[in-house]
Amino acid sequence: MPNPTAAILVIGDEILSGRTRDANMHYLAGELTRIGIDLKEVRIVADHHPAIVAALNALRSTHDHVFTSGGIGPTHDDITADAVAAAFGLPLAVRADARAVLQAHYDRMGTELNEARLRMARIPPGATLIDNPISAAPGFTLGNVHVMAGVPAIFQAMLAALLPRLSGGTPVLSQTLTVMRGEGAVAAPLSALADEFSDLSFGSYPFTRDGAYGTNLVVRGQDARRLDQAMLRLAALFGGQPA
Amino acid sequence: MPNPTAAILVIGDEILSGRTRDANMHYLAGELTRIGIDLKEVRIVADHHPAIVAALNALRSTHDHVFTSGGIGPTHDDITADAVAAAFGLPLAVRADARAVLQAHYDRMGTELNEARLRMARIPPGATLIDNPISAAPGFTLGNVHVMAGVPAIFQAMLAALLPRLSGGTPVLSQTLTVMRGEGAVAAPLSALADEFSDLSFGSYPFTRDGAYGTNLVVRGQDARRLDQAMLRLAALFGGQPA
Repeated sequence: MPNPTAAILVIGDEILSGRTRDANMHYLAGELTRIGIDLKEVRIVADHHPAIVAALNALRSTHDHVFTSGGIGPTHDDITADAVAAAFGLPLAVRADARAVLQAHYDRMGTELNEARLRMARIPPGATLIDNPISAAPGFTLGNVHVMAGVPAIFQAMLAALLPRLSGGTPVLSQTLTVMRGEGAVAAPLSALADEFSDLSFGSYPFTRDGAYGTNLVVRGQDARRLDQAMLRLAALFGGQPA
Repeated sequence: MPNPTAAILVIGDEILSGRTRDANMHYLAGELTRIGIDLKEVRIVADHHPAIVAALNALRSTHDHVFTSGGIGPTHDDITADAVAAAFGLPLAVRADARAVLQAHYDRMGTELNEARLRMARIPPGATLIDNPISAAPGFTLGNVHVMAGVPAIFQAMLAALLPRLSGGTPVLSQTLTVMRGEGAVAAPLSALADEFSDLSFGSYPFTRDGAYGTNLVVRGQDARRLDQAMLRLAALFGGQPA
């Protein structure tokens, strides 16, 4: 059975302007690989309602899971929950369970649950809350869409709460052989080996080190024994060092 | 007149698996902002022909420019040129001008221009070559699509060759005020100010430092004088330090 597939939709002008570098995509990619969910697509769009709705509807119809990152805070530019509700044709209003979570948090901190902070308790009907152990304001799962914060520490904490609820597949394993030759020198035998081991995927990633050309050869697949066989063949062909 | 818009399509299994972290998107975002081209969307897809073709056709019909990164090397998993040609309904074969560039480069290095390396001379008819001062194998511009290498040093060198050919717009400027208060405490006055300065965009990005909540308030717009006015108002409202 093929693994479940996933996409991530990152929402944020600050990433598209080059001001901030996204960290959540890379973190999610590693976590999903570990549990056998295949990340197939990433999109980053601006804080723009129609762009979020269109991307979300495209992704949720083509992937088993969609994770969103960003735009669920208390300020006027946080419009992700509105866009997700609109994509599903649902209303968005303060929900009692989310409000209670926020009220308890701000009571503990001696801070007022003002109107802006209350925006973070707006959750579509039918959605399941995702726990936020850092700053309380929850994410939510609606259908196959998991709505999470953009701040990396909170994104990671929410993902830790969410992942046990998801069914993974067979993790894709990878092994890397580093060869100090250019890609053009390894291409033909590598291609022949990829044809022979058609159940595995072979990638080749060039680099330069101290002015010399090198290539990382990466083999991916779900069967550890086959990976070992392919790595032995690669090492026989090219020498090099397992990384 | 609104600025030209752009998207970047990053191609690579190694980024979706979490093995490698993309660097080109962030670099491109900064360079485009500088010359007044607005990066509106990022997509990352796997080394999978139909996924590349579909993403490319969606992006080139909705943005003034599409930049691609990755998948134009000599190995079997480099399929970007094939996918770009297919998206345009064009054939792909070795072109004499690109072959001459490669031949001169490998002659200088005393390396054979073998069949794998010759794949990098396959350029669609009508495309303009993009110079690669590092490893010779050119990128190309076809219509509004700019096809470039994934290795960051080469991507950056190609972009330096390409950007002078593109017409920019009015650069979007930004100023940042760092305030040591949580987002929930600044949300209401910030929103009122955003309504008043409707020609500017206001973003708010929370962080924690030494256990305390802070927020970066970022104002963006094309008129430096208006930005200064907004920053004075922000500083009067919140104190804080310009970053």
